[in-house]
Amino acid sequence: MERDSRPLILVCNDDGIEAPGIAALVAAVHDIGDVFVAAPIREQSAVGHAITVRDPVRAQPWPFRSPSGSVPAWAVSGTPADCVKLAIDKLLPRKPDLVVSGINQGPNTAVNVIYSGTVSAATEATMLGIDAIAFSLCSWRGGDFESAGRWAARIAGHVLTSGLPDGILLNVNVPDLPYDRIRGARVTRQARSRWEESFHERRDPLDRPYYWLTGRFVNLDEGDNTDLHAIEAGYVSITPVHHDMTAHEHLARLGSQAWDEEPTP
Amino acid sequence: MERDSRPLILVCNDDGIEAPGIAALVAAVHDIGDVFVAAPIREQSAVGHAITVRDPVRAQPWPFRSPSGSVPAWAVSGTPADCVKLAIDKLLPRKPDLVVSGINQGPNTAVNVIYSGTVSAATEATMLGIDAIAFSLCSWRGGDFESAGRWAARIAGHVLTSGLPDGILLNVNVPDLPYDRIRGARVTRQARSRWEESFHERRDPLDRPYYWLTGRFVNLDEGDNTDLHAIEAGYVSITPVHHDMTAHEHLARLGSQAWDEEPTP
Repeated sequence: MERDSRPLILVCNDDGIEAPGIAALVAAVHDIGDVFVAAPIREQSAVGHAITVRDPVRAQPWPFRSPSGSVPAWAVSGTPADCVKLAIDKLLPRKPDLVVSGINQGPNTAVNVIYSGTVSAATEATMLGIDAIAFSLCSWRGGDFESAGRWAARIAGHVLTSGLPDGILLNVNVPDLPYDRIRGARVTRQARSRWEESFHERRDPLDRPYYWLTGRFVNLDEGDNTDLHAIEAGYVSITPVHHDMTAHEHLARLGSQAWDEEPTP
Repeated sequence: MERDSRPLILVCNDDGIEAPGIAALVAAVHDIGDVFVAAPIREQSAVGHAITVRDPVRAQPWPFRSPSGSVPAWAVSGTPADCVKLAIDKLLPRKPDLVVSGINQGPNTAVNVIYSGTVSAATEATMLGIDAIAFSLCSWRGGDFESAGRWAARIAGHVLTSGLPDGILLNVNVPDLPYDRIRGARVTRQARSRWEESFHERRDPLDRPYYWLTGRFVNLDEGDNTDLHAIEAGYVSITPVHHDMTAHEHLARLGSQAWDEEPTP
């Protein structure tokens, strides 16, 4: 794709505007476009595709510094999806060529994609007709954001050059390894998996119960083309994701059921 | 499917435990199973698939009355997905046979499925291996919940009898019409559509800006097998929905790109 000017890149995340991952992502893509930041002022992990409809949203200019200098940035009071909507409608000088989200602290693989605020920012962009990529580093604490940033710049460069299919975002997970130990990139599908929940019950000083969500993640998928398999093998995982949740493969069979009639018990 | 006892049905929603739609849904399914309610104590519209991970969740017993008598119920401090997780792990006497969510005030059709807390409760159930149905009434205020409830009971009865494919929920939207004017039910796909956002900017007394999300919904789909088309024609819309967001049809083409190499600018 040829452009008259440098591409405009909007950077968002769900860990909040002060997280190390978004600083790494801005530093990574700063050379390949004009970068703007609109990110939640507070951490918004596991918000899924929430948007703010009952309250107003605020955006305050934020002193965002990258190694290459100051970057126009806003801290937004809402969710990642709110940030993308508001930036495109009100904050940016023009429609962005690319939205990148992350770099998330922790993987967004398998069934977890649906809970991810990082992915939802990218999803929102594709719903508005803009190419988008979500980046996550597979480390729950700290990790090699510089290595993940180099992969982010490379993949963003490819997308700026070649574009993406309509409505498709890339959900990228990077193993927590030094750059020269990552074996390459693989295009993957989400692994079938589930959480086995087990809430911890505690009692407050008035003896009323409250519950902390905990759980054990279970991979149910033996396939060698999944996101979990790629990460495990030391590859960057690139999963194409769409927002049409219709289970098209079941339309015909379910359509042949007699829904209009009373069920026979 | 034969059972020794009456099926256990968990009822959830996103409009909150005091909303008229959940009362209509409980009344509708009360005859076909043992009903339990776990619903948000406050309205949770547009929360998408949010879960509560940074704070504990509380559940308080709630005096829920239906026309057939009192129903065991809990008001939960979290999101619709939290309600389902907590009910199944801690509140119910056994794993439910069916989770029903709604009846939502307002449609959950087309692109809006991704924002819907009503749908997310059902999605969470399918992620835990339980059949689930989300119900919405296509009226933004009031409407014929009794008519929608009769359709909910019918469709829930079919699902209890025949089951659903693994991991698939039904997203049901009912037109706001008297029962005898609804023409039947159709199995549909989500219509391609988008929101054209336009935030209203206002100023607070200290002259700081804040923004209200508004927008215009645009149907981009001419197909006659969509959810929007069914509702428009006076039919109940039944859309099978899954939570695998992988765009499988793009795996091969994207997999052939040279992601490992530096992009050519």
